[in-house]
Amino acid sequence: MKYPQSAIEAKASLLMIDRPQLKNDRLLRALRREAVDRTPIWIMRQAGRYLPEYRATRARAGDFLTLCKTPELACEATLQPIQRFDLDAAILFSDILTIPDAMGLGLSINEGDGPRFARPLRSPNDIRKLGIPDPDIDLRYVLQAVRLIRAELAGRVPLIGFSGSPWTLATYMVEGGTSKDFMKIRSLMYANPESTHVLLTKLSHAVADYLNAQIAAGVDVVMIFDTWGGVLTARDYQTFSLRYMQKVLAGLKPHAERGAVPTVVFTKGGGQWLEAIAATGCDAIGVDWTTGIAEARRRIGSRCALQGNLDPAVLSASPARILEEVRSILAEFGAGSGHIFNLGHGIHPTTDPDRVAVLVDAVHDMSRAYHDDISNSQSATGTT
Amino acid sequence: MKYPQSAIEAKASLLMIDRPQLKNDRLLRALRREAVDRTPIWIMRQAGRYLPEYRATRARAGDFLTLCKTPELACEATLQPIQRFDLDAAILFSDILTIPDAMGLGLSINEGDGPRFARPLRSPNDIRKLGIPDPDIDLRYVLQAVRLIRAELAGRVPLIGFSGSPWTLATYMVEGGTSKDFMKIRSLMYANPESTHVLLTKLSHAVADYLNAQIAAGVDVVMIFDTWGGVLTARDYQTFSLRYMQKVLAGLKPHAERGAVPTVVFTKGGGQWLEAIAATGCDAIGVDWTTGIAEARRRIGSRCALQGNLDPAVLSASPARILEEVRSILAEFGAGSGHIFNLGHGIHPTTDPDRVAVLVDAVHDMSRAYHDDISNSQSATGTT
Repeated sequence: MKYPQSAIEAKASLLMIDRPQLKNDRLLRALRREAVDRTPIWIMRQAGRYLPEYRATRARAGDFLTLCKTPELACEATLQPIQRFDLDAAILFSDILTIPDAMGLGLSINEGDGPRFARPLRSPNDIRKLGIPDPDIDLRYVLQAVRLIRAELAGRVPLIGFSGSPWTLATYMVEGGTSKDFMKIRSLMYANPESTHVLLTKLSHAVADYLNAQIAAGVDVVMIFDTWGGVLTARDYQTFSLRYMQKVLAGLKPHAERGAVPTVVFTKGGGQWLEAIAATGCDAIGVDWTTGIAEARRRIGSRCALQGNLDPAVLSASPARILEEVRSILAEFGAGSGHIFNLGHGIHPTTDPDRVAVLVDAVHDMSRAYHDDISNSQSATGTT
Repeated sequence: MKYPQSAIEAKASLLMIDRPQLKNDRLLRALRREAVDRTPIWIMRQAGRYLPEYRATRARAGDFLTLCKTPELACEATLQPIQRFDLDAAILFSDILTIPDAMGLGLSINEGDGPRFARPLRSPNDIRKLGIPDPDIDLRYVLQAVRLIRAELAGRVPLIGFSGSPWTLATYMVEGGTSKDFMKIRSLMYANPESTHVLLTKLSHAVADYLNAQIAAGVDVVMIFDTWGGVLTARDYQTFSLRYMQKVLAGLKPHAERGAVPTVVFTKGGGQWLEAIAATGCDAIGVDWTTGIAEARRRIGSRCALQGNLDPAVLSASPARILEEVRSILAEFGAGSGHIFNLGHGIHPTTDPDRVAVLVDAVHDMSRAYHDDISNSQSATGTT
């Protein structure tokens, strides 16, 4: 299958958009299960502390949140891994907790201890009083960053926007920060499901608005990070996490020129529920390293693309060992499109950047064997 | 199926053992998938901080580790939940890290922060130097506690002994304590699999010796807690965790009079691998709350009993809500034996003990409907 746009339509939209056509569209093609020349790769938290240039930018910002809130610096951080490695996508440098911050909870982030809210949700009344942010006002700094990044990328690779899932945002807002056991939010869920649903409904509106604003500002793909859906029972996952991610997906609007924007849903620890995630109609499922990618493909077929799933700890091993693990994951996925190589979770701050270069090049080199030679076709020349 | 012992054999063994016959053998029957009058229940960490009487014992001990190492106090803590609730089993009060402590790593436990080792494993040489403890000498306090508890229980309910899995012990020994991401042990595993296997081999011998000593001292069931097997990839789980639990199981010796002691294997986050766990030949699989018990039974059938899997957070809800969740789990498991009701993980310290009473009584009351009336048969009168 080719892109749904005809050549004429593509040209027409080109006149209207703010950047040249994509030079590298592997990610978008893989998301649509269309032929690619190599398996695309990007890395969760690819802009981050393992990069010395990121640490320098962060030092200039003073603290993590100022970095997120300063569009020029967020743009700089977003582009750093793209400049260093042959990655197939950029991902907006930001934090999943920008929405609760915009809701007035008073976010502070210490990269060692994790995030803290000055005013966590402590009662049903706190939940009732919550308003839904207007991204164009309350999260303007994110949208400015998206526009800047898009202009700077100049079509080199697609840009991924993202949000936390409603459930994941709710966990932080109720716990007040990171948690080991999530007892506060899970207790709320059992003791007062009504209030929990009020909170999640508000958050699903807020997340949909936020992602729509990112799409309007120029992201090419959106990803929902459901970092803590995996702490729920199978039934509660459906009721309290997946259902609200589905509401978000249903609330996404196509871009005026580029049409529907592909979506990725990633529930860490959600390996048992891949079929249910696929049923949301997302374009890709993020798979953590606890689920074999062969098993995931067997269960999901071509209903969704699959993104993952190298254990981030592998990057601490020797180059030879990294190659071995890449070979194994590529072989497990097998031939054909629909695989976006990634880690199964964010890259660890102690990772040696040279190991990332080994990984990225290995994925590109070794994956050729799993794809037909399409070097003479339209896609490899970058025409979207 | 009746117990394998004939009445004469039972009487013969009675003359040789150090306690009267079991008055409540529901747990042992359920472990063997034999008919029971009600679903048995015990609770992970049933002796613990949520009980005021435990906090008093702990205060007398001064600190957690002294409590573990003083047989009279460990016995007292073990019996407290049995005195308060109508539980179907006692579990030895101890810690999973007694083995690494006996190996010389210098354990200290602060119940807030978790365990710390003064001398964590930092090099292959540290691993090479590790000796295997002799439980009769190095862990004598545990065996003394088992004998005391067994005498005090006087056959009221069975006593469960336990150990951490080799992999789980290794994580603490290499990380030096609790960890959020287990990067040190996972890095070791990828960078130096040989040393990791040396460590796990030593630990599987140590765990088998330890459980054999507990069996000889009088425990009726042994459980292996694989708290951190769930952080591994599917393949590494088999290679680095399950394989060594299987070695432990293979190394268990039958009790001189009571024969083979039933075994429970619990991998938290192991819902994707239940079939592989069943293949170890364990008698029961612990199931955490992320896997539906109906799905677990569908996958495992009667190959193993299933233990679990109420979300501990449910105990913070109203009694009505607790009843609803108990009803749901019992209905999900359905009719017949082979279910041991439990939480999907340890009880939370903030739990109100009255809620535990509600839970225990609800399981006994509501589960009658799922079992044939065996009130006139031998088992309900407690003859083993």
